[in-house]
Amino acid sequence: MEPKKKITFDDIAKYTNFSKTTISRYFNDPDSLAEESQRIISEALVKLNYKENKVARILANGQTEFIGIIVPELYHRFFSEVLNRILSTYETYGYKFLVFVGDRNEESERRYIRELMAYQIEGLIVLSHTISSRELARLQIPMATIEREDRYVCSVNTDNYTGGRLAAELLAGHDCDVLIHINSPTDPHIPAYGRITGFQDFCRERGLEHELLFRDVDRSHEGDQAILREIVDDLEERYRGKRKGIFLSNDILASTLLNLLFRRYGRLPDDYKIVGFDDSPTSREAIIPLSSVGQQVDRLAHEAVGLVVDQIKARKEGRPLSKTPVHKVIDPVLVRRESTEGER
Amino acid sequence: MEPKKKITFDDIAKYTNFSKTTISRYFNDPDSLAEESQRIISEALVKLNYKENKVARILANGQTEFIGIIVPELYHRFFSEVLNRILSTYETYGYKFLVFVGDRNEESERRYIRELMAYQIEGLIVLSHTISSRELARLQIPMATIEREDRYVCSVNTDNYTGGRLAAELLAGHDCDVLIHINSPTDPHIPAYGRITGFQDFCRERGLEHELLFRDVDRSHEGDQAILREIVDDLEERYRGKRKGIFLSNDILASTLLNLLFRRYGRLPDDYKIVGFDDSPTSREAIIPLSSVGQQVDRLAHEAVGLVVDQIKARKEGRPLSKTPVHKVIDPVLVRRESTEGER
Repeated sequence: MEPKKKITFDDIAKYTNFSKTTISRYFNDPDSLAEESQRIISEALVKLNYKENKVARILANGQTEFIGIIVPELYHRFFSEVLNRILSTYETYGYKFLVFVGDRNEESERRYIRELMAYQIEGLIVLSHTISSRELARLQIPMATIEREDRYVCSVNTDNYTGGRLAAELLAGHDCDVLIHINSPTDPHIPAYGRITGFQDFCRERGLEHELLFRDVDRSHEGDQAILREIVDDLEERYRGKRKGIFLSNDILASTLLNLLFRRYGRLPDDYKIVGFDDSPTSREAIIPLSSVGQQVDRLAHEAVGLVVDQIKARKEGRPLSKTPVHKVIDPVLVRRESTEGER
Repeated sequence: MEPKKKITFDDIAKYTNFSKTTISRYFNDPDSLAEESQRIISEALVKLNYKENKVARILANGQTEFIGIIVPELYHRFFSEVLNRILSTYETYGYKFLVFVGDRNEESERRYIRELMAYQIEGLIVLSHTISSRELARLQIPMATIEREDRYVCSVNTDNYTGGRLAAELLAGHDCDVLIHINSPTDPHIPAYGRITGFQDFCRERGLEHELLFRDVDRSHEGDQAILREIVDDLEERYRGKRKGIFLSNDILASTLLNLLFRRYGRLPDDYKIVGFDDSPTSREAIIPLSSVGQQVDRLAHEAVGLVVDQIKARKEGRPLSKTPVHKVIDPVLVRRESTEGER
């Protein structure tokens, strides 16, 4: 490309017939201008091939306005939904997000984080479980984790314990004879473990017959189908004629169970009540609308970004990061649908 | 934080008992070292609180190793899957990705792109439809679009036309009396339009009775349910006793139709054959496994990153970007499952 004269605010003002003050406002507080004016200036910038250079500014003050995000995967819609909401905060805070999919590769995740540090990211949001919070804390940058082990770092989590209780209470309220929770073997240090203890405590307090089934689920859809088929065969033998209330650790698993029962009986038999977890889009799209303990994805995302932004501000103002990590807890929301309430 | 002495390769070598050459190799070609050595060095870097500063390097040579990605949304799993695969190329190419969710807000998308340009990103991958390829081309940076209007920029698209033909051929092969394609009103300039023309041409060539139904789908799940219910009522009246082969524009829509039929009949009636598009996880998780025209998401993602990386290299070597955009076309893959083949 041929070298070009650098475009200034003056040039943009002349081209658009706006004042220089208006052009400056466009860059610093665009929403203070009418939409039409924004459009005109925006198009002028493209036509004039205007290029701002922020790299020099970074070097001067270390403010990259980058935040790193580490997600474990994007298959479960909880993760893609949270990511979606985090990215959408660009409108509010102006931070740009560097995203990495961890896929349980510890070394690769570590190398990525180190690279991000080299690029002077200002903060980090971590949803993957790979690296311990003790190690993350050593990075000494503004950080928040979501729904993972968080002992040494700030975090935002759903109140999973209450979520587990709500699921059990819903099933108990429909006169289930036995309450069953299906989950993968879960580390007691992660927030999601609360789903198990909440469910269990509620059942114990009320003296309800209940079972916890830990199986190797969430590895593949075909694997989950086989595991759930086996569980249903077993339950139907052991609890013949009894009403079974089943709480599954996520919506995809609950939807797989619904499909299995529908294929077997052409409908959801009256002696089954099913509830999932997450209230992800999967719960509305299931063969029948699925009751679910909802995580408030939008609040999880906004609180996490807010936590990081607060820490960034504190640092800029020369205040030290808090020694004790802040842990924010978001209420779960029980959503009752056809899988427990029947057709309405 | 107290000021710290800058950590050098010497310090890392001493701490780990590796040579300085090994430490240097760790940074420039980590996979040339044994995994165990990588782990030891990686942990040492954390312990020593090593911080590389790449910002100075950017200022010197303009190489940020950042690529921007613009996705329209992450609700349809086609987009979250493509994003997942693009992000995973970090292992191969080392580029870091700045991700933005467009959500059809043109001004916001434009401002975001301009910000990315200011941070000297090296390339851009665009999946959103918001900004015309003519405007994108003016940015004059290495770029590839995926499945969107691409006249003036490099792109990677599925051969949608062949996909539409494959869907029609599959349904025709099962002796359907009438072939129906359900889609939203589609802009002829986007690649997905080929699904419509491919389907139509196949039907015309073979003299098959067929219909194109354009409805305002893909806005909300509840809206889609209502629209599909109306279509099914209408089809059952007009084609009583005839076998209906239905090709839907994406898997979520096809799964919604399957659910509707299952709830009405307790099974998929013999006079329906259903095929979706994308072969996203939704097609395997549907009430019965859904036949689908698969997009090769992994290849779309890799070819797009490859195209951008090629252009970045060309630019570094002082070669001009090609004046004629390169358009790569990826074959669709027909996946036959129970929704057309019956239970096996």
